[in-house]
Amino acid sequence: MARNLLAAGFRVRAWNRTPGKTPQGAIECASPREAAGQSELVITMVADDAAAEQVTLGENGVIAGLPKGGMHAAMSTISVALSRKLQEAHRAAGQRYVSAPVFGRPEAAEKKQLWIVYGGAPADLETCRPAFAAMSQGVYPVGAPPQAHLAKLIGNFLILGLLEAVGEATALAEKGGLDPRELMTIFGKNSFGSPVFNGYAPRIAATEFEPAGFALPLGLKDATLALQAGAELRVPLPLASLTRDHLLAALARGRESWDWSGLASVVREAAGLPPRRA
Amino acid sequence: MARNLLAAGFRVRAWNRTPGKTPQGAIECASPREAAGQSELVITMVADDAAAEQVTLGENGVIAGLPKGGMHAAMSTISVALSRKLQEAHRAAGQRYVSAPVFGRPEAAEKKQLWIVYGGAPADLETCRPAFAAMSQGVYPVGAPPQAHLAKLIGNFLILGLLEAVGEATALAEKGGLDPRELMTIFGKNSFGSPVFNGYAPRIAATEFEPAGFALPLGLKDATLALQAGAELRVPLPLASLTRDHLLAALARGRESWDWSGLASVVREAAGLPPRRA
Amino acid sequence: MARNLLAAGFRVRAWNRTPGKTPQGAIECASPREAAGQSELVITMVADDAAAEQVTLGENGVIAGLPKGGMHAAMSTISVALSRKLQEAHRAAGQRYVSAPVFGRPEAAEKKQLWIVYGGAPADLETCRPAFAAMSQGVYPVGAPPQAHLAKLIGNFLILGLLEAVGEATALAEKGGLDPRELMTIFGKNSFGSPVFNGYAPRIAATEFEPAGFALPLGLKDATLALQAGAELRVPLPLASLTRDHLLAALARGRESWDWSGLASVVREAAGLPPRRA
Amino acid sequence: MARNLLAAGFRVRAWNRTPGKTPQGAIECASPREAAGQSELVITMVADDAAAEQVTLGENGVIAGLPKGGMHAAMSTISVALSRKLQEAHRAAGQRYVSAPVFGRPEAAEKKQLWIVYGGAPADLETCRPAFAAMSQGVYPVGAPPQAHLAKLIGNFLILGLLEAVGEATALAEKGGLDPRELMTIFGKNSFGSPVFNGYAPRIAATEFEPAGFALPLGLKDATLALQAGAELRVPLPLASLTRDHLLAALARGRESWDWSGLASVVREAAGLPPRRA
Repeated sequence: MARNLLAAGFRVRAWNRTPGKTPQGAIECASPREAAGQSELVITMVADDAAAEQVTLGENGVIAGLPKGGMHAAMSTISVALSRKLQEAHRAAGQRYVSAPVFGRPEAAEKKQLWIVYGGAPADLETCRPAFAAMSQGVYPVGAPPQAHLAKLIGNFLILGLLEAVGEATALAEKGGLDPRELMTIFGKNSFGSPVFNGYAPRIAATEFEPAGFALPLGLKDATLALQAGAELRVPLPLASLTRDHLLAALARGRESWDWSGLASVVREAAGLPPRRA
Repeated sequence: MARNLLAAGFRVRAWNRTPGKTPQGAIECASPREAAGQSELVITMVADDAAAEQVTLGENGVIAGLPKGGMHAAMSTISVALSRKLQEAHRAAGQRYVSAPVFGRPEAAEKKQLWIVYGGAPADLETCRPAFAAMSQGVYPVGAPPQAHLAKLIGNFLILGLLEAVGEATALAEKGGLDPRELMTIFGKNSFGSPVFNGYAPRIAATEFEPAGFALPLGLKDATLALQAGAELRVPLPLASLTRDHLLAALARGRESWDWSGLASVVREAAGLPPRRA
Repeated sequence: MARNLLAAGFRVRAWNRTPGKTPQGAIECASPREAAGQSELVITMVADDAAAEQVTLGENGVIAGLPKGGMHAAMSTISVALSRKLQEAHRAAGQRYVSAPVFGRPEAAEKKQLWIVYGGAPADLETCRPAFAAMSQGVYPVGAPPQAHLAKLIGNFLILGLLEAVGEATALAEKGGLDPRELMTIFGKNSFGSPVFNGYAPRIAATEFEPAGFALPLGLKDATLALQAGAELRVPLPLASLTRDHLLAALARGRESWDWSGLASVVREAAGLPPRRA
Repeated sequence: MARNLLAAGFRVRAWNRTPGKTPQGAIECASPREAAGQSELVITMVADDAAAEQVTLGENGVIAGLPKGGMHAAMSTISVALSRKLQEAHRAAGQRYVSAPVFGRPEAAEKKQLWIVYGGAPADLETCRPAFAAMSQGVYPVGAPPQAHLAKLIGNFLILGLLEAVGEATALAEKGGLDPRELMTIFGKNSFGSPVFNGYAPRIAATEFEPAGFALPLGLKDATLALQAGAELRVPLPLASLTRDHLLAALARGRESWDWSGLASVVREAAGLPPRRA
């Protein structure tokens, strides 16, 4: 994402938890505070709530560095509750806060094929638009900042639901004498074909769970965030619980490095199949 | 389907449980036996296992009428166990039996946009191909006759999984202040967009559960058939159980005439929402 | 049960699917029909619906042999639907039909410690009472014959729910550093202590799943019958589905000979524990 | 509990979030710190993790007041993670920390019929024993402090499992024409009879969900804590998820004041029954 910003001509001041990962052409900063100090737009993209909170609200965080009226676009997948907390903190500091979580695997990020759900004021979107355009193929406003973070969690929940469905479907196919790869290819060419389906179903059918595009522990994190949002809003999500249990079971067997589609390995084992085909 | 066969120039001898439903141009017969009597290819398309068994194995059924070497293409969605039973009965009678269950809503049938999963010998497919071509846009061989029936059940299970996922997703969106219709439209334009998703997700988001394209009791029938196949093959299908429970709950509230996507109404009520938006 | 009847002074005419299993003192008969021929009360106790149907309605079955006004007490665990069918068949034959399914493991049967839920007319119970008294410690009327069979399925469902709960509880205890056997003993001495809990919880905690008191496939049969009754009556039973899935998964791993409490082995494996402690 | 300590002759210094609730004979203190200042044993009993953390680690909390070598017995139901945190904080402060969560409804507390699972060193138990004896009928050591808190969560999870099982069982009974109260009474007199079963099953059968002995939101809290412990330890708990979803659904319908056994109302509604019988 930073490389795409640089390629589009933006001046980028970067801070990364692991020093030395700053892309060529960007100015490496010592802290989020320093990076935010002279920026018109601060973009944060980190792994989880703890990191997002630290990077934004911590002693050397974004809020401490951003000037009054400055803008923070939170692009990580974080909880609705934290998004609300960041919104309030920025408001109290006289700064602007928008959310812009992204959909797409790492390859999509490289190719500017991410798509963004945007939460924030329409005017603020105009400020961000050139940067977003440099990183993505589309931006979809859905409401206030916490709403866009909820939309992202909902999207990831829909993917989890698909992984579960395909996991069960391919286990049934395999034990019933069908070739699951062939079947998923047929389905993907017809009514079921979507980028998500065609990205995941053949891999699940082939039991290719490594290398991870999105690792199992991150999937568990997002299932948990969806369930927390559901609990706050009083919305039972039994399918989210089901996928969470299968992700947990995969981790209980030491599959931390597998892709989240590896939840299907647990479904396979419940059917008496090996976690991966030989 | 019969009308499309007639339009393609086939001579059609038809039998229907409800007399008088024979399409113009077809010869109405008094029984499946009579319809099968002088036919090169018998096609059956009925509502459930009981009907398929009666129509095929009953006193005045297909097997009684079909000449030696005659062909029966079972196009209904039936159980794997019954498909196997029909296969054996035809074999014993010196007749040919293939399976060709279809995907597509009634509108797709009218427009020849069904697609077919085919179970049977390649040579038999050549015999059937002109008739299949008159009714569908594509035929996909997947194995023996019971396998194609399993493939059909797997496809319907994948749709049920989608209905559940979208039901939970839209309930969460709605209670979280998002517009679920807008969100599903955005998702459908991007990674999630497939004919199935774009056919169902906006309707679920709009809580448009009537009129039924595929009625709730038929959905329950298919969820039950998938679970039975899973039990036989020792494959637990927790997502199928989840959707089955929601279909049952919808029927417990008298929603027999709703579309099977109406299982989302139960998810809504669990979240404290009305079954349909006002 | 037959031995207890003989010990109480009854004349017993017996038929068993496996010849030579007739207890000493009983008259071995060639068929259910023959056994029923000269009996005041016919008792059937068989493994499943198929056997119960065969033994009662088959060519040489009970109905064919029982005189007008004769009484049949169906003591097996069978489906509500079959119980209704038998009720109608006996009525049509001018015979009396009651249901009397039993609770208790084989040891309880030997020691006359079974207890019976009774479905039928109060007057018919008086006819049966001496025989029931010779085999059990208590008889509880609950309604018509199919209702007592439903009550039995409900009881077995409650046990399945307990097995699942204890399975999850002991897996959590074990991974959390507690001694699950000690914990279940403490719970069993206090608020949780019941014959069922104290019979099963320590064994699950000790992972003693063999020999079977009630084998896994029978547990699956009863979970399935409960779910069928639920489907007929439009009552979703998600806990029954959960236990059914775990029983299926245990069978998928070849544990046919284990006790139904062995469903806990699947819960253990999902937690990354071996199915049985070393 | 405080009244029972006073009745047994203990000197009690009390602090309550709601002033004026101090029982007669106890010395009312202005803060946990003050209450802890001159005490040999501090007992905390509060509603949730947030309160327990505040009361123990807050500015005017127990740790700030307790002398070196002083003892804190945490009797609330709290998370395993917080118990571990309190253990470390007390260790760092040179104080002793044990856990002693209790089982029993408010009536049991009044009648000294609580029972305690104890986590801590055997020597520390001897210090606490007289106080525990004044409040309960039994103390069961199970390991270190966080383990006893886990044991308590496991116990409450077992109760939740029972509530779910009985909820489904009684809905099925009612729709099948059985009298659920009568059936639960029969079961309670026989194999299923335990204090927990006999305390809850007849009430669920009678749909008596008010007044609450233990309110629904507290049940949700404990289901959530069990699931969190399971997530930390990598133990999927599908039955806990199921009950959590039903508790959430009950709260989504505004049943905050109902007893946690009111989760059965949701099971009833899924079966098309009214939440409570008229």
